[in-house]
Amino acid sequence: MKMIRGCPSTSMDDYQLNHTTIIRHAARNFPEREVVYKTAKGVERYSYKEAYNRIERLANALVQLGVKPGERVGVLDWNSRRFFESYFAIPGIGAVLLQLNLRVSPDELVYVANHSEAKYLFVDESLLSLAEEMAPKLSNVVAFVVMTDKKPDELKTSLSPVYYYEEMLQNASAGYEWPVIDETSAYSACYTSGTTGKPKGVYYSHRCIYIHAMMYALYAGLSCRDTLVQLVPMFHAQGWGIWQSAVFMGAKIVLPGRYSLEDVDSIVRLMVEEKMTVTNGAPALFTPFLNYIERMEKKPDFTGARIISGATEPPLSTMKGWRDLTGAKFIHIYGATETAPICLCNVLSPDLEARLSDDEKWELMKKQGIPVTGIDVKLVDVEGKEVPRDGKTAGEILVKGPWITGSYYNDDRSQASFVDGYWKSADAGAIDENGYVKIVDRYKDLIKSGGEWISSVDLENAIAAHPSVEEATVIGLKHPKWEERPLALVVKMQGEQHSTVTEQDIIDFIAPKFARWQLPDKVKFVEAIKKTSVGKFDKKRIRNDYAEEYINP
Amino acid sequence: MKMIRGCPSTSMDDYQLNHTTIIRHAARNFPEREVVYKTAKGVERYSYKEAYNRIERLANALVQLGVKPGERVGVLDWNSRRFFESYFAIPGIGAVLLQLNLRVSPDELVYVANHSEAKYLFVDESLLSLAEEMAPKLSNVVAFVVMTDKKPDELKTSLSPVYYYEEMLQNASAGYEWPVIDETSAYSACYTSGTTGKPKGVYYSHRCIYIHAMMYALYAGLSCRDTLVQLVPMFHAQGWGIWQSAVFMGAKIVLPGRYSLEDVDSIVRLMVEEKMTVTNGAPALFTPFLNYIERMEKKPDFTGARIISGATEPPLSTMKGWRDLTGAKFIHIYGATETAPICLCNVLSPDLEARLSDDEKWELMKKQGIPVTGIDVKLVDVEGKEVPRDGKTAGEILVKGPWITGSYYNDDRSQASFVDGYWKSADAGAIDENGYVKIVDRYKDLIKSGGEWISSVDLENAIAAHPSVEEATVIGLKHPKWEERPLALVVKMQGEQHSTVTEQDIIDFIAPKFARWQLPDKVKFVEAIKKTSVGKFDKKRIRNDYAEEYINP
Repeated sequence: MKMIRGCPSTSMDDYQLNHTTIIRHAARNFPEREVVYKTAKGVERYSYKEAYNRIERLANALVQLGVKPGERVGVLDWNSRRFFESYFAIPGIGAVLLQLNLRVSPDELVYVANHSEAKYLFVDESLLSLAEEMAPKLSNVVAFVVMTDKKPDELKTSLSPVYYYEEMLQNASAGYEWPVIDETSAYSACYTSGTTGKPKGVYYSHRCIYIHAMMYALYAGLSCRDTLVQLVPMFHAQGWGIWQSAVFMGAKIVLPGRYSLEDVDSIVRLMVEEKMTVTNGAPALFTPFLNYIERMEKKPDFTGARIISGATEPPLSTMKGWRDLTGAKFIHIYGATETAPICLCNVLSPDLEARLSDDEKWELMKKQGIPVTGIDVKLVDVEGKEVPRDGKTAGEILVKGPWITGSYYNDDRSQASFVDGYWKSADAGAIDENGYVKIVDRYKDLIKSGGEWISSVDLENAIAAHPSVEEATVIGLKHPKWEERPLALVVKMQGEQHSTVTEQDIIDFIAPKFARWQLPDKVKFVEAIKKTSVGKFDKKRIRNDYAEEYINP
Repeated sequence: MKMIRGCPSTSMDDYQLNHTTIIRHAARNFPEREVVYKTAKGVERYSYKEAYNRIERLANALVQLGVKPGERVGVLDWNSRRFFESYFAIPGIGAVLLQLNLRVSPDELVYVANHSEAKYLFVDESLLSLAEEMAPKLSNVVAFVVMTDKKPDELKTSLSPVYYYEEMLQNASAGYEWPVIDETSAYSACYTSGTTGKPKGVYYSHRCIYIHAMMYALYAGLSCRDTLVQLVPMFHAQGWGIWQSAVFMGAKIVLPGRYSLEDVDSIVRLMVEEKMTVTNGAPALFTPFLNYIERMEKKPDFTGARIISGATEPPLSTMKGWRDLTGAKFIHIYGATETAPICLCNVLSPDLEARLSDDEKWELMKKQGIPVTGIDVKLVDVEGKEVPRDGKTAGEILVKGPWITGSYYNDDRSQASFVDGYWKSADAGAIDENGYVKIVDRYKDLIKSGGEWISSVDLENAIAAHPSVEEATVIGLKHPKWEERPLALVVKMQGEQHSTVTEQDIIDFIAPKFARWQLPDKVKFVEAIKKTSVGKFDKKRIRNDYAEEYINP
């Protein structure tokens, strides 16, 4: 579409949206608000003012180290205060913070570091061996910086040349005059781990992150009175960016450091002791937390707190349990690395609230939500035509907006993922008459049967709920009459009592939830289901293995 | 400062922040939320969806009328639904909505319309005579549009050529494809009425208004659950812009139409009946509202509501009264036409809340607040050096940021008001160690005595509180020993009982609130105090009249 230039304004439109201004604001106007961080030694805390002083020193240290504007600086860390500081100092001098996802394979990390031409690598002491494994294969890194509370001589490392974060800070001058950075410059980079192929680079601009932080603060209802417990790893789409929103408003931030899914009690205790009002994470986290809370003698009071939960649908029992036992409510969101990541958010308009029954409201709350203000979301069919807002017809979700990715960094695969200025999410969703979107499947995994769509994900979830099912996947296969028909692969639970489950048992179990024509034509019991390197069902390979199943049965 | 260009990002940084996208969002995702508007006939309402349909028709009608991108379209109206619609349709097609302040003199309005080269003038039926008075002197206007519920033949007007808003809408097609507008294009224009000279033009960009709307929604804590009663006239710095924030979040909006300070009961009833949660206005409004509420048998419950109050300091008794009787709390803000207008906002950090006594908190709440996130505020002395954060030393407030004005439109006076990229507010403030700013005076009205500053405004407020004082002003006059010393001019109240008040009575009355050296050397009783056309004390002329008072007494 042609862009219109109207009458010139007299506004300071050349004032650049720079990320560093938000921490300067917090340090100046909320100097005493705390950043709490958990280390191996326990729970520690400092003020925004102290954090900012260290950020200024770090900026000076980076300049001294030789980091130049535009260069990429990799960071391998848990949600620590040093990661937090790096997120301001590195982009603040004009460089790019490269998020390194410590959950992917070392080879993939090496690919990411080399593709981005990272010149520096910051690594937490606990991840030294990972960095050492990567080091020989890193083509561009000229220096390593170890983040540790220990003295350098207490550590042994083969990394070279190696510097120490705390030593660098001690030797750096206080105070730093932040340069003005063109707001379209990259602030941070995160690589997506797709199910196929090498990761693709998303380079977020200062402008993108700044506007996203404001929008997210609005949808999370953040103010300086809030306390955020930042559970989502900051190496993954900047931890969904809500800590940036928290800084924007001068809220208190709690960084849990290294933790695993087993650390249920320590995380819940942190939430209680620090008086959490906002937190975020995959729904899978909050069910074990809830189980723990159910066993607590004195239930924590989280009245008014918001649990921002993305990725898959939060189970109703978990949402209801948190509300009933603690007063906290879920806000369901949807996004991806390419959307910075907030794209849809489940807010309930008062009109719907007044009109819907309780059950209808819970059903609605399970959906991924409405497009947040500022972006343009549409659901389209294979011809690119918008699907009707009937809550049923599935379409691929396309997104554009000021914080959405417009291409992949130096990557020929960009062309396939962007169309008419939109990013193609490859997710399939259905939008209802109120504008609420429900993700039904990966677009390519949708099954088209007799002109209607069947969600493989819905079938999988239903089958997996059977007590004898360990895991299950559903794929669409070519069919001579119906175009495609579903096939289910099921791995049975270990144990004598599960061995007798039959194909018909599975079908009977899920039948009440689906129309007859949506049920799989076959359920096959298998020993294992093929997966990708990141643990997702490798549907491409599986479809290949069973390609002839319904054609030449 | 030099701007650094770093590594290119992959974000859609060319996605333009366009104001129209926010009403499209509200209409799509909060279609049933209401816009309530008061007319001569009573309280009426329609939905965002219906409003948007009319906005699309208006856009088509504007194109049909011949309005071109970049052209200025003046609007003379109260806070009506048609003004609301115009605010989206006019900038939405790329033109500029020129705000016409119906409170200034017709000559000043003519100056504004001609300086901006307005080609079209929209006028509410109730303001026809004003438009007719202006019409012969308008150099560029090619068509008038009358906004009325009446049929054209029920109205008589000398305006020509004249069109009728509702007729235009009826004849226009439904649906409109909004163009993408360069975000640095002017969206709306508002002229400042200074105490001297002709008004100066501020042309807000789409970008400025968009970011300002997000920031304001954050500081007002707006969500889709809110109901805004928009009291500030939308012809004055777009009514402080909070209705734009309300649209951003999908909140309900109440437009009171034409009202005067005497309509206390109808406004309070509107607030109660529509369940107001947010409102805005000068503090002077809220004292009579409170007096009315004090007399109500059943006090309204405004628990959680925010009263956003700007301009002068809200009286403590008013703030406390609203809190005690209704549960509503004040948020004190500061700004100007040039700041779109929010610049400072009084939010209380939880750390201060925990540390301060109740009295200290109320004192703090009277200040104008901290700079809102995203702008850069500094207080400087005459040499341009930042003043210490001691809460006492006065400095001129300078501001820069993405929604701040960088120059006046086609105006040679720009040079005097902008320095080093900052807008010079000409307001003097003192900033305390927590970052809270208190406006102490117009910078040029500050009195410098023996190297220390005296606030003329503080003295005026104190003297005006004397029961026998009708009004009072204080000016600084040249003094042979102290550089400057204050002189007070006082108009006594009518009536026998006030006639005996003496100079010493006044001094004794205010003495407890000031240091001895801050008290005026003289209090002169006068019949009247010279004022400017907009009713402010004309201190320039007054200083001139008394220039020799302390030199050749």
